[in-house]
Amino acid sequence: MDNQNQQILLANRPEGLPTKETFEFREIPIEKPKDGQVVVKTLYLSVDPYMRGRMNAGKSYVEPYAINAPISGGIVGEIVESRSEKLKAGDKVQGSLNWQLYNTVDAAAVRKIENTNVPLSAYLSVLGMTGLTAYFGLLDIGQPKEGETVVVSGAAGAVGSTVGQIAKIKGAKVVGIAGSDEKIKYLENELGFDKGINYKTTDHLQKALEEACPNGVDVYFDNVGGSVSDAVLNCLNDFARIPLCGAISSYNADENEDFGPRIQPKLLKTHSMIKGFIVGDYSNDFARGIQDLAEWLSQGKLKYKETIVEGFENVPDAFLGLFEGKNLGKQLVKVSEPSNK
Amino acid sequence: MDNQNQQILLANRPEGLPTKETFEFREIPIEKPKDGQVVVKTLYLSVDPYMRGRMNAGKSYVEPYAINAPISGGIVGEIVESRSEKLKAGDKVQGSLNWQLYNTVDAAAVRKIENTNVPLSAYLSVLGMTGLTAYFGLLDIGQPKEGETVVVSGAAGAVGSTVGQIAKIKGAKVVGIAGSDEKIKYLENELGFDKGINYKTTDHLQKALEEACPNGVDVYFDNVGGSVSDAVLNCLNDFARIPLCGAISSYNADENEDFGPRIQPKLLKTHSMIKGFIVGDYSNDFARGIQDLAEWLSQGKLKYKETIVEGFENVPDAFLGLFEGKNLGKQLVKVSEPSNK
Repeated sequence: MDNQNQQILLANRPEGLPTKETFEFREIPIEKPKDGQVVVKTLYLSVDPYMRGRMNAGKSYVEPYAINAPISGGIVGEIVESRSEKLKAGDKVQGSLNWQLYNTVDAAAVRKIENTNVPLSAYLSVLGMTGLTAYFGLLDIGQPKEGETVVVSGAAGAVGSTVGQIAKIKGAKVVGIAGSDEKIKYLENELGFDKGINYKTTDHLQKALEEACPNGVDVYFDNVGGSVSDAVLNCLNDFARIPLCGAISSYNADENEDFGPRIQPKLLKTHSMIKGFIVGDYSNDFARGIQDLAEWLSQGKLKYKETIVEGFENVPDAFLGLFEGKNLGKQLVKVSEPSNK
Repeated sequence: MDNQNQQILLANRPEGLPTKETFEFREIPIEKPKDGQVVVKTLYLSVDPYMRGRMNAGKSYVEPYAINAPISGGIVGEIVESRSEKLKAGDKVQGSLNWQLYNTVDAAAVRKIENTNVPLSAYLSVLGMTGLTAYFGLLDIGQPKEGETVVVSGAAGAVGSTVGQIAKIKGAKVVGIAGSDEKIKYLENELGFDKGINYKTTDHLQKALEEACPNGVDVYFDNVGGSVSDAVLNCLNDFARIPLCGAISSYNADENEDFGPRIQPKLLKTHSMIKGFIVGDYSNDFARGIQDLAEWLSQGKLKYKETIVEGFENVPDAFLGLFEGKNLGKQLVKVSEPSNK
């Protein structure tokens, strides 16, 4: 490799939608690794909606990006130089790294990819944060048992579609709620959901749920909140578990105007539990989750969708495309070919 | 003992408040015990508001009482005759038995009282369902750690006052919410709560909570729901736990009109958990709970209030008095003296 490196900086904080001017490319040298460090060549890079929040000055649930500093996010890369015993050149790794062609970091800053029998890009989608969110939320909080009924909202999304497939693997009956007939077909015909419900065309969501779940709802994986969740909460069995992963319907609501039916009486009546979480709550257990997910993936039990754009120069466009709804499934950028395919 | 027995039947289903005509006394013989059975003489008997619900025809969370059949509830008694190896005459027991002077039941239908160093009546209050509700809700769901902040609503009630005292035993900082200055004094001066807040006279409950809990709220034991809980939920720390024990403010509300601020965004933001429960969920662990509570009680670490009326003939009056707010603390009836005090 030559000494040529490149990075993408946050040029300024966008107001409303980001634009191309939000980003700035800079040529830099590749930093020499010190003892215990490695040089990681970026193969795939993830662009995610949550990064928009980090472009603001205020703290969301992660720290804001700094102006004139590189943007960072999920990356799958290859070790091209190592001064650590833990990793050697050619090893594939994943981690949260800067948007650069090459990152020079402590070996502990990346996690070695053990199972390379699956596409490397999967480590940024179904084996990455979205897959792990589904895995830990469903299995740690939801704890579905064989024969139980699992309902998932936002079911056709990256997280929801994985939740449903894991629930099927665990022997549960799975009902997905989504917002288009195309998505419902995808859930039922391609992902093996027992039933999909289009909440936009259903006259009475609760009635549709009662029909789809004649034995009641034991686990509700909640990606959306709002009136969809109000309906599901009227169908809970005793001792139901509700992993709370998203509340999209409330994100843009004024907190003082975001009212709905009180849920405490429903939780009390059914002895049920609801728990908010983010995937980072389980960071100590990521290795186990990735191992299980990779195994299911290599067995053909997990399907997922990716849209992959090629070229580091197209990272800003790929990011901006997220807000135009262009991508189907997880949006990634392929930056380089691995050296030894 | 002679063969004289008496029982109290449900004469008819009351509409609105029960009256004396709701009850009927009947003379019956004492049933002879069969193999494995015991005869229990009633010493103390518990009258509880939840029994009103069981007088209706519809199912609440326990089965309705039958018309012209004896009413049943928590009783502390003494074995006067035994045909079981597990219990002998003189043993003190507790159980859910009929409102009778004597009950003839299988030995397994009652639980032996091991620790008699505390007043027997306590087994129907602080060592009974209310104490166990506080114990399991707080310790199993709330899991307060030393130095954490526990907030309890309905704090001066039988459950709430025990919750706060157990939280103090566990080394937490305890803030109680109640509805009169007299109750606040009781919490702060007699029960050792760190702070009491009178929600009826506080201009701004959330502000008062923020002042009382400068380090935020780690555990919220929710006895009441409604606007009091709305305020507490704005003060949660990350990974807060909320045992959900009551929703008084919603009991009389039409379900379709019982609206409030959505709590899912708050639970999501703080990664917090809320779980509805009733004490029966922990029936397999009652022995452990009673043992701990009895030990704390005999060490003087748990205070409680009882109002004790004497005489089986006064059971209906004691029950009716519950709805006039006459009783301070747990309302009990003393039916007989133990034979060997």
